[in-house]
Amino acid sequence: MIKVSVLYPNEEGKKFDMDYFLNSHIPMVQEKLGATLKGGAVDQGLGGAEPGSSATYVAMAHLLFDSVEAFQSAFGPHAEAIMADVPNYTGIQPTFQISEVKM
Amino acid sequence: MIKVSVLYPNEEGKKFDMDYFLNSHIPMVQEKLGATLKGGAVDQGLGGAEPGSSATYVAMAHLLFDSVEAFQSAFGPHAEAIMADVPNYTGIQPTFQISEVKM
Repeated sequence: MIKVSVLYPNEEGKKFDMDYFLNSHIPMVQEKLGATLKGGAVDQGLGGAEPGSSATYVAMAHLLFDSVEAFQSAFGPHAEAIMADVPNYTGIQPTFQISEVKM
Repeated sequence: MIKVSVLYPNEEGKKFDMDYFLNSHIPMVQEKLGATLKGGAVDQGLGGAEPGSSATYVAMAHLLFDSVEAFQSAFGPHAEAIMADVPNYTGIQPTFQISEVKM
């Protein structure tokens, strides 16, 4: 199993519309990726290790797929439409990471 | 539900012993946190968005708790012992983030 993590850095003065993300963007991604998407999670940053410190990422989305190839085949044809929706909820440029799920 | 994410930046020349992490460190953390720990995941970084690019994080661990208070109460008394084990698997200084699980 692999995980695609989409990490939105906590940039001062930039908005992140979590309601739009959860209720419009994610359902659109789910619809486009279909059964190839095996699961996912969305986290909203609260803080860092020290009390009162800010979170490194304002939001993180984690999407599960059977393999890198399965992700690429499903995402490729819809990449443009999915990325075109990003400005509707944030001006933050996300960082992408692909990981192998070990546990 | 809240998630404590421990993110290990991919630093050139620094080791991360995934076998030790999975088979010794994580079981020790699970034993110390007990039933307060509601679940978790461990990811090993494979790459970034571009083919051939390196992952931002060599490893990520995500631990689930009912609340920030539940995490702090369970982790506090064992923080020193848990952190003292880190040099056994890596010289990387991890970044901590606490998030609210939205999905």
